[in-house]
Amino acid sequence: MTDPVNAPSTAVRRYRELQTTDPAVLDEVLADGLVAHVAFVRDGHPVVIPFGYGVGDLGDGRGRQLLLHGSTGGGVFLDARAEGIDVSVAITHSDGLVYARSLFDSSFCYRSAVVFGRAVLVPAAQKEAALTIISEHLMPGRTAEVRGMRPQEIAATAVLAVPLDKVSVKVSLGLPDEEPDDGEDRSCWAGVLPLGVAAAAPITSPGTPEGVEVPASVVAAAQRATAGITRTVQRLDQLT
Amino acid sequence: MTDPVNAPSTAVRRYRELQTTDPAVLDEVLADGLVAHVAFVRDGHPVVIPFGYGVGDLGDGRGRQLLLHGSTGGGVFLDARAEGIDVSVAITHSDGLVYARSLFDSSFCYRSAVVFGRAVLVPAAQKEAALTIISEHLMPGRTAEVRGMRPQEIAATAVLAVPLDKVSVKVSLGLPDEEPDDGEDRSCWAGVLPLGVAAAAPITSPGTPEGVEVPASVVAAAQRATAGITRTVQRLDQLT
Repeated sequence: MTDPVNAPSTAVRRYRELQTTDPAVLDEVLADGLVAHVAFVRDGHPVVIPFGYGVGDLGDGRGRQLLLHGSTGGGVFLDARAEGIDVSVAITHSDGLVYARSLFDSSFCYRSAVVFGRAVLVPAAQKEAALTIISEHLMPGRTAEVRGMRPQEIAATAVLAVPLDKVSVKVSLGLPDEEPDDGEDRSCWAGVLPLGVAAAAPITSPGTPEGVEVPASVVAAAQRATAGITRTVQRLDQLT
Repeated sequence: MTDPVNAPSTAVRRYRELQTTDPAVLDEVLADGLVAHVAFVRDGHPVVIPFGYGVGDLGDGRGRQLLLHGSTGGGVFLDARAEGIDVSVAITHSDGLVYARSLFDSSFCYRSAVVFGRAVLVPAAQKEAALTIISEHLMPGRTAEVRGMRPQEIAATAVLAVPLDKVSVKVSLGLPDEEPDDGEDRSCWAGVLPLGVAAAAPITSPGTPEGVEVPASVVAAAQRATAGITRTVQRLDQLT
């Protein structure tokens, strides 16, 4: 079996040292994200649109796929109706700003996965499974707290599936380069400002009766969202 | 003068009510972001890549533009050398998860700007100005704390400029829909988990001498990054 991460055609031209072939890194990048930026070509022109997504195996022999959530009337879903549509999909995390002693050497800490492939519409028979995977990705545990999906709700929703066999994964995590003889002014502070996702206290809807507690799924989503920056700080601390 | 935000060709097909023509909203979406997802077409296939960006007027008669930061050897910069390259650029903020009483009505709070246009390389004479604009966007105030750019650093860097005259701006901010007669189970909690950007304590590089304080630019960047979620919570609170 060839390694699906970083097949030769996905090799980056520059900053090659940042590219990784560790599948655990891809898994983490996918697990940490909520929104994927999906690019496609329409009338010869590029279009990029953000989508909520999930990752899972629909048991259809296509293996683990990226599942993009939309509606049956959405443009790219119409474009994909006949035989699918070529897409490039990016999931990116901004993990920090790297303050070097020059603007030139300043940079980002980030993790990104860019997927290339043909997106196809998930057939009706697998749509509920696909929607459940997406829902559990975006709001883990929520499926068990709400009523089941209705047939007309499933019918009004569309899911695009993109194979995960052609993916470029890049990670940049580190402190600014500093060499003893680099000639830079040491009275100028250098370091990293770690960034990540924050969650504020949940806001209860006016229609929720008093006494109905914030459920486990919301608490879990908040914890998941904010775990990334804690991990980033731990990893950066190990480098100091 | 026509309104550059939402020219007819950028009209969205669905969820039209979310599209806004308020230029202040576009300004806020651009001001709050660090990374733009840039889509272009290569050999007929879509490619999407994340870039650091800034926004500014280079005084070249093209008005305020989106400025994308890269290196002279980067793929899209080579592709753009001759006569520019068609791009679509998205800047997206995930402002929250909306927990309705069904998965179907659950959604995101988000703000997004999608720009369509021809990206051209910024000529050598304007590159330092463009890099300063990008730097001040990503690390406000940092330019004054570090040494000036060197000619070879400017030469090794490339900037793509994209006009801001064709932009689709969308905002979704609200509590879950709930009607008295919607038939949904009120014992199921509904509401919003607000999300935004978090900044952790700055990590000082090993080469920074003791006594050198974290500078104003880093403090300002942390405050700017975390201001978004505070604003989101205030806006949601006004709806309850």
